[in-house]
Amino acid sequence: MTFLYKADPQRGERWAELFAEKAPDIDFHIWPGKADPDKVRYLGVWEPPDRIAERFPNLEVLFSVAAGVDKIDFSALPAGLPVVRMIEPGIVAGMVEYVLWAVLGLHRDMPTYRRFQEERLWKPLSLSPAGGRRVGVLGLGELGRAVLRQLRTLGFQTFGWSRAPHVIEGTMCFGGRDHLPDFLAHCDILVCLLPLTTETTGLLDKNMLACLPRGAALVQVGRGPHLVAEDLLSALDSGQIRDAILDVTEPEPLPPSDPLWVHPRVTLTPHIASMTQPDSAVDVVLENIRRFHAGEPMIGLVDKAKGY
Amino acid sequence: MTFLYKADPQRGERWAELFAEKAPDIDFHIWPGKADPDKVRYLGVWEPPDRIAERFPNLEVLFSVAAGVDKIDFSALPAGLPVVRMIEPGIVAGMVEYVLWAVLGLHRDMPTYRRFQEERLWKPLSLSPAGGRRVGVLGLGELGRAVLRQLRTLGFQTFGWSRAPHVIEGTMCFGGRDHLPDFLAHCDILVCLLPLTTETTGLLDKNMLACLPRGAALVQVGRGPHLVAEDLLSALDSGQIRDAILDVTEPEPLPPSDPLWVHPRVTLTPHIASMTQPDSAVDVVLENIRRFHAGEPMIGLVDKAKGY
Repeated sequence: MTFLYKADPQRGERWAELFAEKAPDIDFHIWPGKADPDKVRYLGVWEPPDRIAERFPNLEVLFSVAAGVDKIDFSALPAGLPVVRMIEPGIVAGMVEYVLWAVLGLHRDMPTYRRFQEERLWKPLSLSPAGGRRVGVLGLGELGRAVLRQLRTLGFQTFGWSRAPHVIEGTMCFGGRDHLPDFLAHCDILVCLLPLTTETTGLLDKNMLACLPRGAALVQVGRGPHLVAEDLLSALDSGQIRDAILDVTEPEPLPPSDPLWVHPRVTLTPHIASMTQPDSAVDVVLENIRRFHAGEPMIGLVDKAKGY
Repeated sequence: MTFLYKADPQRGERWAELFAEKAPDIDFHIWPGKADPDKVRYLGVWEPPDRIAERFPNLEVLFSVAAGVDKIDFSALPAGLPVVRMIEPGIVAGMVEYVLWAVLGLHRDMPTYRRFQEERLWKPLSLSPAGGRRVGVLGLGELGRAVLRQLRTLGFQTFGWSRAPHVIEGTMCFGGRDHLPDFLAHCDILVCLLPLTTETTGLLDKNMLACLPRGAALVQVGRGPHLVAEDLLSALDSGQIRDAILDVTEPEPLPPSDPLWVHPRVTLTPHIASMTQPDSAVDVVLENIRRFHAGEPMIGLVDKAKGY
């Protein structure tokens, strides 16, 4: 019984140690490795290999090592193969940290103070209480809900949007594409935490950015293709958007010639908002393997029709 | 019965509206104004006027409009005059926001990513969980305790130091000057929230900075004179301190020629970490006036011997 891991090999070393300690009955191999393909029951991937069904005839579960599964082409998989995305406390904690940092910085005008520092300008701005600031989160899965919980604790007015209606105490929720413009009109700070699907690709375009209140700010921690970068640049230049903090781009890495690198109102980080933490991730994978064999629902099982 | 306000006049306008609405029996005047000095019972100040006893013979309480009272020379006041510093929810909330932003940014290497962006370098760094990061707070008053509460919620290991011993659940506390080096040795990120007194002036000098673990980071939200700026600059250049976020300096405003403005490892904001919010501050002042007349202890009453 083999678990084959095909993602960052350095972090894979830690996965190997944890499997050896916690599940010594499972052979753990890092791709490409020397695993017998017939014995591979579980495959953990960021980008899957091609011809999965032919290579691994006895594969039982495909695990994503990331929260997103947008690198996985469902049409290339055997129809009955379960795909599980990574929902583990380490990913959630990392995302909460990043989004709190970004929202607090935008709330407190830190990008403006950074420009003031470059000009050696000592100029206090007025301070608005969090209760007067409206923060909206696109995407109400595990990550979006965890982020909203912390934002509420800090006293922000919170709003949420997702494809299907949700009820979250303390957060005004909007559901479905028809209500997206109304949701956006409520967001002084917009956080994108959507999964990447055909429906969400290019969602944040000039029409949607124009629905935000003038001078709104953006935190983009979804996937690069959600955002039409040239529309963002126009919105920044026109003042429709005052500042953007981007952790994801299209493509990644972002080429050095891309104008996002140097725009004075863009803060860019290299897709580090959150990372799977091996120590907590392996626990979730082992629990899912147990659930799979017990016929119980796995944590993070993907609905291939919805794409997440 | 007059309340005379001597601080930022623009914010004073809001105080005037709130007094008119909530305490119409108290005459509210903004300095210099036309108040009859004999009728002034309450004085609200950032920097007090001179010759207070002569000017206002019937003064009953001196209120600071700020959390600190370091602009007030106790020796120039009548001995029996109570001095009250500002402890109100708006100040606490603002400080919690700023410190969370600063600590999360240092925890997640944001100053380094900012430098990477300037170099157009896409280079993810490894991510340490909050549970492996030690954050220490100097000063365990209302602000320090509120900050520690939020840091614990995010999973950081927390440490506290103050002049006198404290017990705070979930935070390891150190008391007294003798234990300061031991406390500092525990701080990957150090937050200074001390009051400014003769004892704390110059406290953060090269000897104390040398007690921190190598590569520690500093968040300075106390008062400028706590920190010996040239010692900080040396510690940044030697790598003893990796990054500093400073909201207070000596003097303020910081002159354009000061090297802190341009040091690549210094983030500087113009004393905006927290500001008294008139809407909540006036409630606290009115409650304190009620308590004063009822003979109950006022919120934020200063111990002149301790200086805070």
